[in-house]
Amino acid sequence: MKALKGFRDFFPGEWAARQYIFETWREVLRRYGFVEYEAPMLESTELYKKKSGDEIVGQLFNFQTRGEEDVSLRPELTPTLARMVIAREADYKKPLKWFSIGRFFRYERPQEGRLREFYALNADIIGDDSAAADAELVAVCIDVLREFGLTEEDFVIRLSSRDGWRGWLRDKGFDDDQVGAILGIVDKIERGKPEKLEEDLAPFKLTLEEIRAFIDQPGDQYFGRTRQVLQNLEQRGLADYCKIDATVVRGLAYYTGLVFEAFSLGKARRAVAGGGRFDDLLSILSDGKMNLPGMGFGMGDVVLGNVLEQTPAAAELLREDVATAQGVEVYLVIADEKHRPEALALAQNLRDAGITVDYPFTPTKVGKQFGAASSLAERAVVIGGEWPRVSVKDLRTREETELDHGVLVDYFAKLREDELVDFLEDED
Amino acid sequence: MKALKGFRDFFPGEWAARQYIFETWREVLRRYGFVEYEAPMLESTELYKKKSGDEIVGQLFNFQTRGEEDVSLRPELTPTLARMVIAREADYKKPLKWFSIGRFFRYERPQEGRLREFYALNADIIGDDSAAADAELVAVCIDVLREFGLTEEDFVIRLSSRDGWRGWLRDKGFDDDQVGAILGIVDKIERGKPEKLEEDLAPFKLTLEEIRAFIDQPGDQYFGRTRQVLQNLEQRGLADYCKIDATVVRGLAYYTGLVFEAFSLGKARRAVAGGGRFDDLLSILSDGKMNLPGMGFGMGDVVLGNVLEQTPAAAELLREDVATAQGVEVYLVIADEKHRPEALALAQNLRDAGITVDYPFTPTKVGKQFGAASSLAERAVVIGGEWPRVSVKDLRTREETELDHGVLVDYFAKLREDELVDFLEDED
Repeated sequence: MKALKGFRDFFPGEWAARQYIFETWREVLRRYGFVEYEAPMLESTELYKKKSGDEIVGQLFNFQTRGEEDVSLRPELTPTLARMVIAREADYKKPLKWFSIGRFFRYERPQEGRLREFYALNADIIGDDSAAADAELVAVCIDVLREFGLTEEDFVIRLSSRDGWRGWLRDKGFDDDQVGAILGIVDKIERGKPEKLEEDLAPFKLTLEEIRAFIDQPGDQYFGRTRQVLQNLEQRGLADYCKIDATVVRGLAYYTGLVFEAFSLGKARRAVAGGGRFDDLLSILSDGKMNLPGMGFGMGDVVLGNVLEQTPAAAELLREDVATAQGVEVYLVIADEKHRPEALALAQNLRDAGITVDYPFTPTKVGKQFGAASSLAERAVVIGGEWPRVSVKDLRTREETELDHGVLVDYFAKLREDELVDFLEDED
Repeated sequence: MKALKGFRDFFPGEWAARQYIFETWREVLRRYGFVEYEAPMLESTELYKKKSGDEIVGQLFNFQTRGEEDVSLRPELTPTLARMVIAREADYKKPLKWFSIGRFFRYERPQEGRLREFYALNADIIGDDSAAADAELVAVCIDVLREFGLTEEDFVIRLSSRDGWRGWLRDKGFDDDQVGAILGIVDKIERGKPEKLEEDLAPFKLTLEEIRAFIDQPGDQYFGRTRQVLQNLEQRGLADYCKIDATVVRGLAYYTGLVFEAFSLGKARRAVAGGGRFDDLLSILSDGKMNLPGMGFGMGDVVLGNVLEQTPAAAELLREDVATAQGVEVYLVIADEKHRPEALALAQNLRDAGITVDYPFTPTKVGKQFGAASSLAERAVVIGGEWPRVSVKDLRTREETELDHGVLVDYFAKLREDELVDFLEDED
């Protein structure tokens, strides 16, 4: 029996790599003062019908429960976030800076970078419509990617504006439905064949040349605010990571203002993250009872994981973290079974002090114990005939120290503190 | 629109409380040398039919996908773990000490302590059949509960043995089916009416008195190994947290040897965790191709959360963690808008150094900025007319220090290091 198609088993090493991604997301978002939330994995299908583009509804894992509710495994978080904000908005000071790290499900054909079950970071700012908020959201997205060891050689943030596009197309006399349809065509401009694009644009009496001219130089009356966002990012010293690129319109129907994506420049030339403003969404979902501006971005674990693997500096950081996440600090080598009861008490004392400890459950040859110790631990404590004295062996340097067992807790706590202070000093 | 019945929205404060539970689980399991894994949220329904008691199959959220696979949201992790171990057992040294923290789903009527979606810790030891391994698993369960601030006044581990019960009943001439049926009755002994229990036992020619006599003093030929486990726990200094209590048989059909539960002694007199040995499960699920002993326990977040809330010392630890998890270290008060670009650059520098920072996106009155700072941060940095000098204000002590902005990264890194070393020294 295997996992279902498009679903993943995470064995310990694989899971440590996911945890590294989640902890990095969490750490950077916390630096920006975002707070974490979570929500159900299952929602009423109605929630997605009300808001999402058809694309997502067609990809739902949806079903009827025994109680005949029509429910769906969540394909994304924004509708749930909107539902939660509508319910308890008054309890929180604006702007909300919220993020979440969770699982999502899409019933689509599994392929490179797309699975049926995946993890994603979602970060949102609700209740602030300023260009400064736009810039903050883009900045945190950049810093997340930098924290993984990615540089301006590895990715670029492409900034664009739905509002800008809409303004330009309205000035040309198109109504909202036409604007939506035209943006659907623009969304395919990078991968579509020119003849096909021309053909699709023809009913609107637009040419690919006109579209490309706008993309090359979107006027300030349309992209002025996008330039403000870029300027704010420059003031932070993040200019090298971003550019204005009007090709980006992002698929989801509910975006209103800024849209952006983090585009990988390595082997996998594709978006590793994307988002934008959705200033009308809370109003739509609350039937007009609430009107808060909002914006957010998402970053999935599958494409990101591939990009990290393919970028040597990032892959190295990941590997180091995965290795240290799986060992222990101390392995107790029980060289004399007579002292097993004392070894158990010692394991307990060390663990009570927060030190990670392993040892063999049953009598085992000393050589085999050292084998286990070397594969798992930084240091071995050998408990043998000299009890209550024990010897501490550094398994990398082979250095040995003889000590009374009673001072081991202090000894390891001190070691850890020294290593921590050394580490902090290196960081300075 | 609300969350579905039996499902929870986790707003930031509520989620911080869950994260505190997860991080505590993780920390203690790591101390014992357990490594973390994860698995799909959705499995083939077949996996549960093959192994689980009827109780669980009747409570599945199961459905047909568009591709007509019969799938279920996972109600528990053990069948998945068995599936994974069968697939890659040869890659890992035995014993495996694995844990997982994840979500589970049961379609049952929501009530106190039972929801349709919940989180659980699962910890398992695979590939070791010793009483020493039994004791290790019980010990880590005890230490998880102690880490939350619970004491021997708040819970007790009740140790029992399926093997012991089976041996006694076989010696009385019962076959396996009868043993299963009788243990089903024993499982209800604490809550059931005596007359009803007598009536259920009658077909087996057993009396409640006989059952109670066995529970009072299960002979060494049946519970000798359970006493060995208890002795091992005594050697660790954990005797005060455990007792042998043959009343416990645990519901799941696949348990073979040790069974145990952590029973809350506070207001909610019920099990907060439970588990046992399942030495036949891997053989059953692999159709006899593999035969590794195994054991594990689970601890859900719902009952545990209630117990923590109801136990003052534990509730206090939880509250402290939730409060610190949501603030930032530094709030930038922009007292002179002229210096906003420099404030943005400063925010970036501090965040690059790992310091958590917030600030107002748009021009805001200084008093209001201090209000936001006080509710969020430990310290405010005031950026005003004295730039490049800024003042750092400790928002608890009101102490103020004037500094050049260029030394702030070092200043806050040093503060954090001092606080960390103080903290470590307090811990010693």
